[in-house]
Amino acid sequence: MNIKVGIVGGTGYTGVELLRLLVLHPNVEIKIITSRSEAGNNVADMFPNLRGHLDLQFAPMDNSALKSCDLVYFATPNGIAMQWTRELMNAGVRVIDLAADFRLKDVDVWQKWYGQIHTCPDLLETAVYGLPEINRARIKNAQLIANPGCYPTAVQLGFLPLLEHGIVDPDSLIADCKSGVSGAGRQPSVGFLFCEAGENFKAYAVSGHRHQPEIKQGMEFVLSDHGHLDQQVDFTFVPHLTPMARGIHATLYARLNNSNVDLNQLFAERYKDEHYVDVMPAGSHPETRSVRGANTCRMAVHHNKGSSKVVILSVIDNLVKGAAGQAVQNMNIMFGLDEKSGLEGIALIP
Amino acid sequence: MNIKVGIVGGTGYTGVELLRLLVLHPNVEIKIITSRSEAGNNVADMFPNLRGHLDLQFAPMDNSALKSCDLVYFATPNGIAMQWTRELMNAGVRVIDLAADFRLKDVDVWQKWYGQIHTCPDLLETAVYGLPEINRARIKNAQLIANPGCYPTAVQLGFLPLLEHGIVDPDSLIADCKSGVSGAGRQPSVGFLFCEAGENFKAYAVSGHRHQPEIKQGMEFVLSDHGHLDQQVDFTFVPHLTPMARGIHATLYARLNNSNVDLNQLFAERYKDEHYVDVMPAGSHPETRSVRGANTCRMAVHHNKGSSKVVILSVIDNLVKGAAGQAVQNMNIMFGLDEKSGLEGIALIP
Amino acid sequence: MNIKVGIVGGTGYTGVELLRLLVLHPNVEIKIITSRSEAGNNVADMFPNLRGHLDLQFAPMDNSALKSCDLVYFATPNGIAMQWTRELMNAGVRVIDLAADFRLKDVDVWQKWYGQIHTCPDLLETAVYGLPEINRARIKNAQLIANPGCYPTAVQLGFLPLLEHGIVDPDSLIADCKSGVSGAGRQPSVGFLFCEAGENFKAYAVSGHRHQPEIKQGMEFVLSDHGHLDQQVDFTFVPHLTPMARGIHATLYARLNNSNVDLNQLFAERYKDEHYVDVMPAGSHPETRSVRGANTCRMAVHHNKGSSKVVILSVIDNLVKGAAGQAVQNMNIMFGLDEKSGLEGIALIP
Amino acid sequence: MNIKVGIVGGTGYTGVELLRLLVLHPNVEIKIITSRSEAGNNVADMFPNLRGHLDLQFAPMDNSALKSCDLVYFATPNGIAMQWTRELMNAGVRVIDLAADFRLKDVDVWQKWYGQIHTCPDLLETAVYGLPEINRARIKNAQLIANPGCYPTAVQLGFLPLLEHGIVDPDSLIADCKSGVSGAGRQPSVGFLFCEAGENFKAYAVSGHRHQPEIKQGMEFVLSDHGHLDQQVDFTFVPHLTPMARGIHATLYARLNNSNVDLNQLFAERYKDEHYVDVMPAGSHPETRSVRGANTCRMAVHHNKGSSKVVILSVIDNLVKGAAGQAVQNMNIMFGLDEKSGLEGIALIP
Repeated sequence: MNIKVGIVGGTGYTGVELLRLLVLHPNVEIKIITSRSEAGNNVADMFPNLRGHLDLQFAPMDNSALKSCDLVYFATPNGIAMQWTRELMNAGVRVIDLAADFRLKDVDVWQKWYGQIHTCPDLLETAVYGLPEINRARIKNAQLIANPGCYPTAVQLGFLPLLEHGIVDPDSLIADCKSGVSGAGRQPSVGFLFCEAGENFKAYAVSGHRHQPEIKQGMEFVLSDHGHLDQQVDFTFVPHLTPMARGIHATLYARLNNSNVDLNQLFAERYKDEHYVDVMPAGSHPETRSVRGANTCRMAVHHNKGSSKVVILSVIDNLVKGAAGQAVQNMNIMFGLDEKSGLEGIALIP
Repeated sequence: MNIKVGIVGGTGYTGVELLRLLVLHPNVEIKIITSRSEAGNNVADMFPNLRGHLDLQFAPMDNSALKSCDLVYFATPNGIAMQWTRELMNAGVRVIDLAADFRLKDVDVWQKWYGQIHTCPDLLETAVYGLPEINRARIKNAQLIANPGCYPTAVQLGFLPLLEHGIVDPDSLIADCKSGVSGAGRQPSVGFLFCEAGENFKAYAVSGHRHQPEIKQGMEFVLSDHGHLDQQVDFTFVPHLTPMARGIHATLYARLNNSNVDLNQLFAERYKDEHYVDVMPAGSHPETRSVRGANTCRMAVHHNKGSSKVVILSVIDNLVKGAAGQAVQNMNIMFGLDEKSGLEGIALIP
Repeated sequence: MNIKVGIVGGTGYTGVELLRLLVLHPNVEIKIITSRSEAGNNVADMFPNLRGHLDLQFAPMDNSALKSCDLVYFATPNGIAMQWTRELMNAGVRVIDLAADFRLKDVDVWQKWYGQIHTCPDLLETAVYGLPEINRARIKNAQLIANPGCYPTAVQLGFLPLLEHGIVDPDSLIADCKSGVSGAGRQPSVGFLFCEAGENFKAYAVSGHRHQPEIKQGMEFVLSDHGHLDQQVDFTFVPHLTPMARGIHATLYARLNNSNVDLNQLFAERYKDEHYVDVMPAGSHPETRSVRGANTCRMAVHHNKGSSKVVILSVIDNLVKGAAGQAVQNMNIMFGLDEKSGLEGIALIP
Repeated sequence: MNIKVGIVGGTGYTGVELLRLLVLHPNVEIKIITSRSEAGNNVADMFPNLRGHLDLQFAPMDNSALKSCDLVYFATPNGIAMQWTRELMNAGVRVIDLAADFRLKDVDVWQKWYGQIHTCPDLLETAVYGLPEINRARIKNAQLIANPGCYPTAVQLGFLPLLEHGIVDPDSLIADCKSGVSGAGRQPSVGFLFCEAGENFKAYAVSGHRHQPEIKQGMEFVLSDHGHLDQQVDFTFVPHLTPMARGIHATLYARLNNSNVDLNQLFAERYKDEHYVDVMPAGSHPETRSVRGANTCRMAVHHNKGSSKVVILSVIDNLVKGAAGQAVQNMNIMFGLDEKSGLEGIALIP
């Protein structure tokens, strides 16, 4: 099978990562990649790692070329995908948005957090949240995928088994998250200069981060889906910036309402058939570099039997399982391919 | 005044930092610095930043030279200071131990966590815990100071106003802490190689870290000292390694039993006379680099009035306020000097 | 085809990189990997990036298992491979040594630089220097390959077209080289701790580095092979340590004896059929990260027509084209495979 | 003595470094610091390391306030200082420009390299090049100081003794220089983002860098000043970007016309009275971190007697001896203070 793929907006870190994966994917043909600012330039001049691998120029926005694709990825700032998605869908094209346009179901919440009017709120319901470990069946038949955020992927996968079994107090949930700097994107900005973000550690957006409502929505969906209908999530989310390029480390805290469950067993069981979730032995310390460049979410449970407190450690590469890799995994599911196609790269150590 | 100072074990990062501060201290004369492994070598050959500032050789251990000092610092591995302290004290020398030998009051707890027999348990009671913001009066007259650990300094100062006012539920306390790699010392060890610790983030010692009982003891002391005698601390401590040399960032979580207090005001009030604690405006995000090389603990409170949850962010330089700087601050107090002597260096940005 | 491969000494950075490449190689079956210190432990416990990819334990040294392999890689410290190579060769096994045991032809020079007695000096002549761009034909039929050092790969490829055409003054050659810290290996050592090598830049071994005679030998071989028999190489080599994990940047200086040649054309022509050498447009600045994880040597020529001075910039990933990747490239040539098998990974940016 | 100081443009890295030094200088009173973009904001809000040390707001440009100062520093982009300097000089104010407006003597060369018209070319002759080790006497009485560039400081001090003695072939000079990222300033720019400049090494501006003519001019001045009038400098300069915040490492190559001089002795002798140049023992490898935050240029000579080739290694902190520290040193000389006033900080290790 050959999937004709278009990419809108390929000049950021998510874009180059998507290219890195798609270029070697055995079933993908990249037909067009658009960028207003870079139209006419060789992609490989901007990203020299692609020299010899990709002979393509950035194109201006081109509806008709995109409409001839089987699948279009949006690797654009928030608010762009929603301008083009309906037209593409009407033309039968499937769409994966790596930005946030379709991640929230409630348009009011979306508009509050993203500070703009949503131009196609009806599609919020249509869109499938592209977290395969939760939504695989729905993804298979979806025409529009909202690819999850990076923090939401690491956090939701880490809390998932606890929520499904309804064994945590949902008003006790804390996610203390640390992200590499690539999560901030490739726009020039003082705060992400080498001399500002290097040799430095800080929290940011403690008073409110857009991924908080996304995670909350996801967790409430899981609770409700598993019959824990009465549970309200009160979720504290503190993101931090850590001086490395790639990686998210989520340190998750919760209070158990049943402290005698063998949590490690429960996690191992939950994920035993998930190729891209790796549950380490109880008490392990997953490292972000162990997934650098790979599509894996690696986690470990820290719990002493009888204690009401549990700590979960969950790591991903924010650009892979937290963005481009998950998007390719979604594509594989949508098109009936082996879910691992094009995703078998091994993390670089060191 | 001229304080004759001896240093035992000056080859680690705490040692060189102590030298950096003492060399420029107007009231200090460094009489001797000992190192078994480096005896006979110039200190400035090992630490070339001291070339032109310090013309001294490492000496072998020399009791009598140390006894002629007014003050001896131990910048040694755990278990060394306790071998020499009594003899020095008997000779009238004052001692500041930068290691952990005298930090815990309960000898059983100490022996459990440090895995060795304590050779002078009676001195555990004698030793004053050298956190000036809590113990200034006791430090003034102390002959033996247990200089606090780095994490304990950042965490205790961050929780202190809440504990003193008894407005947190002490079984809800969580400290999610991130340390630069210098906290691991200067011993060769695979895990702290540039290629292991760089571009990587991980938790460690989640199942138990020696600073946990130190912090717990300190917090219980504060609660008890302020009349909250019935409160048991249940404290979760998760340390992480972050790819930078210096700095600790403590992200502190607690549940309030009184959610209507103006916490920022309370913190500002508590620390208004503390030169080395800087409370930023509410909602700020202190950066570790803002204290790199400086003796400051900088913090900010995140709390929405009416919410039962509070987040405190607290940063220090682990080698300064978390070790050598605090030791010098203690010396200044002990010898009746201006508490700021030798400590007015400004953090390097970038 | 299925090549049965053994690896001796797989616990260093070269070893894990070799595993990363071989695990995904379509024609390789890893039969055994030995390590004295780690025998019995899972390889993936040491290198968690391999979890789910490699289910193998380190084995003790095992001659007979190695003899049943088609190919044995030595990823050991210098001086180990020469103890086992003859026996393996006698058993018909082919050998690629990633260390330096067989890199120099002159046993006296070898013994001087490596400070030990060479136990099989006759094999120095037998061994083929595994730089495919120079020695492809010889590699094809070799039984013993001396895999080049990292600096020598970057430097020789950069000077090669100039030397072949005899248009440089060979006593004017300077290589100012900068290496990432992984070049120093994974042994614990103070100098390569994060807090020593990070935020720091320094030269080392300016008075003499083992790669100097290797490069000199290689350049003299090229000169002689191209009829420039009378030319003596006087070559200045200054290596530096730069605070990153992977990558070598060689800045090469030479004085031309013919300043009117179109050097960029000459380089482009020389390497037009070399898949793993990428000559950028004249005046470009190749970045080390553009080859991170990839087997490419990327270079650019800086020369103003008429000037007698030329600067060549040449970058590689020291662990790939400078070690494990080149070793796999040599294997592919030796066994008649597509030279690109298992080597098509694209560099990670960022 | 109390020097009333004004600073124009204090929002870059040179500006904050100047503030860090001046705030603790015993003879300086900062009267005004201007910034168009930040006027009205607290300086310490932008640079939190200054909290508690400096209670000052950025002011809009204010000629009359500047005219009431004894000394005005320009820490502005190139082309700003020349707009204000004459007026300030006419008012009797002394000026130190940390940018490049007055560094070159030849207005045509300046205009070619800086791409703008010079508005007061006559001041180019008036200005004194502020490298104290060469120009101390002239600096003492200067009203206008052109503070040298960072690379030019490291390179000129490294070549100086060789040039003064006329023992190098001046057409053989090469400076292979490596700079930390702070040299690029604090403007937002993609190329200096953490994710672009980190874990990466590259050369830049190989075809021509503005510091090349500055260094060439300085070296020709030295040759001419020491009677080597017939010597033309042909100087190759290759700058590189290295992933650290602070520091320059210059690796200098030259061919000697007298290979029997004891160069180490010659360097030691030349700099024995220079407090801010430290000549290490022959064969040493100075580290950039050994001068991080300090005003020292540290160097070492590598030369085998009888060889015609010499390598000099020279390191500085680009923001201190390469910018703000040297500016303060110049001020101290101009105002008859101890040259070391306010400059005795010791480099931070680690």
